[in-house]
Amino acid sequence: MTDRKEFRDLASPEDAHETVASLDIDPDPETVPLREARGRVLAERVDAGIDVPGFDRASMDGYAVRAADTFGADETDPVVLPKTGVVHAGEEPDVEVGEGECVEISTGAVMPAGADAVVPVERTTERNGEIAFETAVAPGDSVMAAGADVAAGERALGPGTELTPREIGLLSALGVESVPVRGKPTVGVISTGDELVRPGEPLEHRAGEIYDVNSYTVAAAIEEAGGEAVLYPHAGDDYAEMERQLRTAADECDLVLTSGSTSASAVDVVYRVIEERGELLLHGVAVKPGKPMLVGRFEDAAYVGLPGYPVSALTIFRTFVAPAIRDAAGKPEPERATVEGRMAVQERYGQGRTRLMPVGLLEDGAGDTLVYPVDKGSGATTSLVEADGVVEVDADTDYLAAGESVAVELFSPDVRPPSVLCIGEDDPAFARLLDGVRNPRYLAEGTRSGFRRLRDDLPDVVVASGPLEPEEETETLASWTREWGLVVPEGNPQNVDGLVDLLDADLDFLNRTTASGLRVSLDAALDDLAGEGETGRELAGRIAGYERTVRAHESPARKVAAGDVDVGLGLRASAAKLGLDFVPVGAESVRVLANPGRIEKAGVRELERALDGVESVVADLPGYEA
Amino acid sequence: MTDRKEFRDLASPEDAHETVASLDIDPDPETVPLREARGRVLAERVDAGIDVPGFDRASMDGYAVRAADTFGADETDPVVLPKTGVVHAGEEPDVEVGEGECVEISTGAVMPAGADAVVPVERTTERNGEIAFETAVAPGDSVMAAGADVAAGERALGPGTELTPREIGLLSALGVESVPVRGKPTVGVISTGDELVRPGEPLEHRAGEIYDVNSYTVAAAIEEAGGEAVLYPHAGDDYAEMERQLRTAADECDLVLTSGSTSASAVDVVYRVIEERGELLLHGVAVKPGKPMLVGRFEDAAYVGLPGYPVSALTIFRTFVAPAIRDAAGKPEPERATVEGRMAVQERYGQGRTRLMPVGLLEDGAGDTLVYPVDKGSGATTSLVEADGVVEVDADTDYLAAGESVAVELFSPDVRPPSVLCIGEDDPAFARLLDGVRNPRYLAEGTRSGFRRLRDDLPDVVVASGPLEPEEETETLASWTREWGLVVPEGNPQNVDGLVDLLDADLDFLNRTTASGLRVSLDAALDDLAGEGETGRELAGRIAGYERTVRAHESPARKVAAGDVDVGLGLRASAAKLGLDFVPVGAESVRVLANPGRIEKAGVRELERALDGVESVVADLPGYEA
Repeated sequence: MTDRKEFRDLASPEDAHETVASLDIDPDPETVPLREARGRVLAERVDAGIDVPGFDRASMDGYAVRAADTFGADETDPVVLPKTGVVHAGEEPDVEVGEGECVEISTGAVMPAGADAVVPVERTTERNGEIAFETAVAPGDSVMAAGADVAAGERALGPGTELTPREIGLLSALGVESVPVRGKPTVGVISTGDELVRPGEPLEHRAGEIYDVNSYTVAAAIEEAGGEAVLYPHAGDDYAEMERQLRTAADECDLVLTSGSTSASAVDVVYRVIEERGELLLHGVAVKPGKPMLVGRFEDAAYVGLPGYPVSALTIFRTFVAPAIRDAAGKPEPERATVEGRMAVQERYGQGRTRLMPVGLLEDGAGDTLVYPVDKGSGATTSLVEADGVVEVDADTDYLAAGESVAVELFSPDVRPPSVLCIGEDDPAFARLLDGVRNPRYLAEGTRSGFRRLRDDLPDVVVASGPLEPEEETETLASWTREWGLVVPEGNPQNVDGLVDLLDADLDFLNRTTASGLRVSLDAALDDLAGEGETGRELAGRIAGYERTVRAHESPARKVAAGDVDVGLGLRASAAKLGLDFVPVGAESVRVLANPGRIEKAGVRELERALDGVESVVADLPGYEA
Repeated sequence: MTDRKEFRDLASPEDAHETVASLDIDPDPETVPLREARGRVLAERVDAGIDVPGFDRASMDGYAVRAADTFGADETDPVVLPKTGVVHAGEEPDVEVGEGECVEISTGAVMPAGADAVVPVERTTERNGEIAFETAVAPGDSVMAAGADVAAGERALGPGTELTPREIGLLSALGVESVPVRGKPTVGVISTGDELVRPGEPLEHRAGEIYDVNSYTVAAAIEEAGGEAVLYPHAGDDYAEMERQLRTAADECDLVLTSGSTSASAVDVVYRVIEERGELLLHGVAVKPGKPMLVGRFEDAAYVGLPGYPVSALTIFRTFVAPAIRDAAGKPEPERATVEGRMAVQERYGQGRTRLMPVGLLEDGAGDTLVYPVDKGSGATTSLVEADGVVEVDADTDYLAAGESVAVELFSPDVRPPSVLCIGEDDPAFARLLDGVRNPRYLAEGTRSGFRRLRDDLPDVVVASGPLEPEEETETLASWTREWGLVVPEGNPQNVDGLVDLLDADLDFLNRTTASGLRVSLDAALDDLAGEGETGRELAGRIAGYERTVRAHESPARKVAAGDVDVGLGLRASAAKLGLDFVPVGAESVRVLANPGRIEKAGVRELERALDGVESVVADLPGYEA
């Protein structure tokens, strides 16, 4: 085997936080136009440079007067004064108010010299060019004095203030057109590993290529934390190339992250370049999944190496790196970054390491937040969207009991629990109907899995197909049927006519997993086919490939289309979509079953309404009937 | 008076919501690169186009084997197999695994043909080029099957999904490089009113010009709601010009807003153009402050006219317009847009109209949120930053009791209650010391106001100067002294030597308001100056301008600098800053007094630490001593 680095002395999470915090990634402050300042953070105190308003300002439409001239006026005995002029907003008064005179004035206009109050027009009447005042006013009434709103020299906004629309309003009032703000730390992302391809480029599956998930994910997370992300071309597993990329990035960035590969050799190359050409401060943290985390410096930049698996990378970024970026950008932690909930199920541990456990969120019928572990293995990118955040579990916690209260650190402040959690059969009609629901979650793990999870009271809705029935009571929201059978290549070159043709034949079959309701339908059909003294199970043993299974509804058909197998278990709709031939075997019902305790949830009711559209959705799917 | 529109039939708030919702401002969907998709909202369902992984993938470093070959192996009796090759991540296997063979494999590499499981390297030992396996594995162990993460044809993300880093991760894994997203509605802002000047341009105070606050504020609020803001040049009060601006904006935007002027004539021009050349759907809403709101259509665009005062404009925008923009952009209402709190003081009404009452937020000592009305008059731009949001009070609510629970709609989801609320004397040393505190609020309303508000248990901290003492118990966090006296022009042209020179003199004096501690110090000095049978009050009557007052500490000095008055009450520090001469009269203490119930608040403790810097701050302020 290649000689590989083992990280035997793992740092504690506290040490890792301190080490990252000790890196200097503070950018220089900058100046931005006010129009672009939203979301930025003030770098300095802003004191008012001018009075607001800058002049004594009428705050009502009416007449500017000397208040003393109105003393004693009331409705029965008004004071009548001649009007000697008019002042509109936005013009310099060309008139003064003498004793016993008045001047018409608009809201916002400059008070003419001599006047010290405004009488609102509603309290006056006009009589032959003269104005009758039906009320007395005091000096200053309906006038906003110069500087009464903000006075020159006053503290307006302090350093560290985040600029939301209202602060932009105050700065506008002060005439500020450019604003000193905290810089955004520039964070470079170098993806590593020879197997990575950037999205949009062609992928060679046979060569083990996969799309680079972490670069864009981490870049988005950097920007969410207040940094500026720069993506560098992917560095492969070559030492010299890695060193060159790191130098370029370190030169241009405050912080450089590497991320991407899960292969030991790529991780090892990064490690050696940092250790030999930079400064390695920490390697490995005693958290799961943080073992391969690196912290150091390279030239003038700070450096952090993230784990390769996407959920691990995002979790470690969020836990250790995002706080440092927010700090450097002057941004506070978002309020909604953490939510409280209680464990829906028990979860056992025994790691001896702090664990950052990916979890999903769910609202129960009473509006409480339920938290359930999502453990699809760290390699699964779907964990990114099937989990909503992580729960930090102490190294000495053996288990979390069902009902126990936990704090969930959301992957992003904008992450929201799904409106409705649907678990069960992978069905294309249901997938389309979900388009009418805002923010649903659909775990297409199969009918059996939906029923099993229902025993834990987890799903709001189970999607079931085939003969299986739940142990728990449920309420049927909708149902339809779908035709299933054998998907074969176009033209049916092997002349497959039914299940019986698969027995002892030289045909390569691809099955669905046992969790699938469709698989249960197949097994039931084999039972029906079995004659005297024979079982369906025995027949199954005579089908080549019966034990080879895939999880999703369209996968066997796709393998047929690719020429990898001769016959796949599947739907007429899939065969039609992929231009394949189809040998019908049966029709099974698909039922959308609500958990009775969740029937009043807004998301379930929204789903119910969306299910009304079933007729038009199944009309587009061959073999479907509502 | 000018003939003006009266809005007698005010629409209900519900009608206004419905009318705005009936406007069509939906933009066309667009396609953006994945790298720029963060924060956008998916316009369509995205189904997986490829399997992830695209091949059977080793999920551990180790050896690819036929599982059956390991059956029966354990530590005491290992199975030994020859190694026939190596497969790294990112390369196409050039070897097959035959019966009784094994191939070295890296995490992420393609499983070579023939193999159906991986034995982790930790469970093996190398012996003379052969590998001893100390454990048996089952088919599929340590292998992630093609499509196990995401299968081609599966629903990946639904329409309406907001793209946070994790969704970007899933789209990356699927190789998606450009994403169909909801368009952002384009919202034009036309500011109206001849008196408005854009920030950064020179201002003519005498002509009643003021900076245009609403354009930038509303533009920022539009962008916060998910729209794209376009600012149009300001249209003045001219009918033809307004019509032309509206046509340009309507041509380029989905929605056009007018906003800015408080003058009746400008409002009237807009009203007439919409009524005569467009379609007026609603004029005036029975909410305070919504009376002047207009809703209609102009050419192909929707139109809403906002009130002129900034707080009113932002409140009406937030209440009636932002929901429509969010809807069109496909964005949900932010979770933190509304917070709960209880009224700190009683507040009376009697409007007969729904009131959107600006309020400030405050945490009390126990961590509860207190809500207090901020009523500085709608013309005050400082209300924007002194209030945090609005409480909607029903038309038939007479009063809100202290302690009553209310919901506060925040001006922005990013608005946070201040960490510490300081009320009292306007003092430049305190203003600078606050720079060390994150998100403080400082209402420099004067010492007297601070003490009065302390009776309502509102402030965390009162800043006091001069001889006044609080009725309530307080805890002194810090104190210093400041030299005060008479600020006169450079060179002291009138040879002012002390207070006595102001008596019966031909000198124009400018005083501070009675709320100010400094004013109380002046009155005390006049009392001291008064001889037998004379009062300080009588002496005050002999000072020309004694009754003319301004609120802020530097304002009298600025009026001296501007040549508007001869003598101003002020600080040596202000005179020095403005290059004026100073005639000392006395020194007064400035005390930072904590509300004892709030002493444990994090913000108060942060302020305490910041106050440790008083020595260095006062060293920069002439006349100050710690």
